[in-house]
Amino acid sequence: MTQQMGSWSLQFAEAPFILSSASVAGKKEGEGPLGKLFDMVCGSDKFGEDSWEESESTMQKEAAALAMGKAELEPSDIRYIFAGDLLGQTIATSFGLMNYEIPLFGLYGACSTCGEALSLGAMCVAAGYADHVMAITSSHFASAEKQFRFPVEYANQRPLSATWTVTGSGAFVIGKKQSRGKACITGITTGVITDYGIRDSMNMGAAMAPAAARLIVQNFKDFGCGPKDYDLIITGDLGYVGQEILWKLVGDEGYDISKNHTDCGIEIFDCETQGTQSGGSGCGCSATTLSAHFLPQVESGKLKRILFVPTGAMLSQVSFNEGQNVPGTAHGVVIEYTG
Amino acid sequence: MTQQMGSWSLQFAEAPFILSSASVAGKKEGEGPLGKLFDMVCGSDKFGEDSWEESESTMQKEAAALAMGKAELEPSDIRYIFAGDLLGQTIATSFGLMNYEIPLFGLYGACSTCGEALSLGAMCVAAGYADHVMAITSSHFASAEKQFRFPVEYANQRPLSATWTVTGSGAFVIGKKQSRGKACITGITTGVITDYGIRDSMNMGAAMAPAAARLIVQNFKDFGCGPKDYDLIITGDLGYVGQEILWKLVGDEGYDISKNHTDCGIEIFDCETQGTQSGGSGCGCSATTLSAHFLPQVESGKLKRILFVPTGAMLSQVSFNEGQNVPGTAHGVVIEYTG
Repeated sequence: MTQQMGSWSLQFAEAPFILSSASVAGKKEGEGPLGKLFDMVCGSDKFGEDSWEESESTMQKEAAALAMGKAELEPSDIRYIFAGDLLGQTIATSFGLMNYEIPLFGLYGACSTCGEALSLGAMCVAAGYADHVMAITSSHFASAEKQFRFPVEYANQRPLSATWTVTGSGAFVIGKKQSRGKACITGITTGVITDYGIRDSMNMGAAMAPAAARLIVQNFKDFGCGPKDYDLIITGDLGYVGQEILWKLVGDEGYDISKNHTDCGIEIFDCETQGTQSGGSGCGCSATTLSAHFLPQVESGKLKRILFVPTGAMLSQVSFNEGQNVPGTAHGVVIEYTG
Repeated sequence: MTQQMGSWSLQFAEAPFILSSASVAGKKEGEGPLGKLFDMVCGSDKFGEDSWEESESTMQKEAAALAMGKAELEPSDIRYIFAGDLLGQTIATSFGLMNYEIPLFGLYGACSTCGEALSLGAMCVAAGYADHVMAITSSHFASAEKQFRFPVEYANQRPLSATWTVTGSGAFVIGKKQSRGKACITGITTGVITDYGIRDSMNMGAAMAPAAARLIVQNFKDFGCGPKDYDLIITGDLGYVGQEILWKLVGDEGYDISKNHTDCGIEIFDCETQGTQSGGSGCGCSATTLSAHFLPQVESGKLKRILFVPTGAMLSQVSFNEGQNVPGTAHGVVIEYTG
């Protein structure tokens, strides 16, 4: 029987497996430190489409096809898709995945959506509701800048605290039976929205770090564990600015995660040479970095147990222009090597 | 053991109960046929706030408080919230429910989100992941018009096929034990996104009817039943225009639902006197109408078994302006009287 652990967490009695995953990324991501690891890199960020939004949809479609292909499954084998993106009304998802004709639960957790999708997907499989589900998210630099800040053509200046939205999509097939893949999702910790009063849309790291800190500390409490019980604690897109705040806030609660914490936004770009300031961000940042970089290390047994914590900022053009704060959220997923 | 029925449906072995629900509505809705049934009606649609978006958030907050109060539960008794709205980045939800500090799964299924939230909430409770969860959605006429079409001040003309976005929020507490409430969720049918090529943002009924038709027919097939097995089949917000298309499409598949079909968008307004054209729409339309009008009839045993099918149109300002179609989706929930 799956157990309710503490107030925010679940531990699965029969942990669902991540059977396969795939990553599709843009040009800049392809030139970064993880460039050679992605399954597909597009040279133009357009992916053959006429608009940035359609390009993002195409990334989701391709990532889904690759993930299903690796698991040797057809769309008809996938019972549910759990998916989302950053755009208004999650159009990248709706238009990208429509043609697969798979029952779809559309999600919105800002940049934490990858964690939300993996959580709900794992819950669904562990309960016996599906043999296979897919979790998929995406972001695109140009569609996100247009959605949240300024059109790319405006060429606004970017402060050092700004992050660079990753052009990419990651897809994960979760299944009950270990047909392949040696990574399983053993537990989840689901975040609450946390508002520390940040109002700077160019400092998402600061907006999200408090939610990530609360989630990580709650995960330790709920599972009766600590930093040493994870080979790595991996946040989604705090970047260097958010990481510093995270370490401080978690430290204030008596835990030192500075030895084994990293952030997908820090891993995916070389900020020194790529001009990405604090780091990468977006739904596609954590999804592609997990798929291309960290999951293979779990599958090979190099990493035995990780806490994957995609982070999200509750920012919208409308709420921002109305003077609202930017609260944060996070979704934690415990992923283990199964031998 | 919960059973996977056909390709789109689940039947719960231990059906979760709807322990309580609450509805909060605006002025126009309060003047309509269901006006006296809502738990709270605001005289100004502002709900004491300065912006339409904050008003919508406040509706969600109030609906949640009322639903928890009716179930005699505190926020700390609710393990998860499944919630969403129509606005970009679902800000009505994030800002409205933040202060409850409850782990939140943010959803986007356009106007079908009430069905999506009830489905995931029921799945979660039936699996033993939570003793109590809350499903909640909202929409607001003014925030939705600004989001999707024109600011209200622009005073655009509305064709006869247009629907009127309901200002309202409905919240539902779902629980494992029948402490109160005599309605339970016995099954769900999860929709796929369906595109019949509609491009008219003033005719959402036509955009959503194909998805609703496919979902209803699939529900019949998955559960081996037909129209006669439901006292009522209730779509979310097709309005009169969408209803006519729905009956035709379902009829083409050999089922006559004209005797026992109705639509929340048809029920909530008196279109003759209230100038709401084809009917009501929005995430708040199906949620408030289920809570205030239909659920009490199930709880009293007047309705023994209903198929509740909130319908959604995958419309966004951006996709619409880029010339994309408006595909539809739907989420079906089977609700039964438990005696």
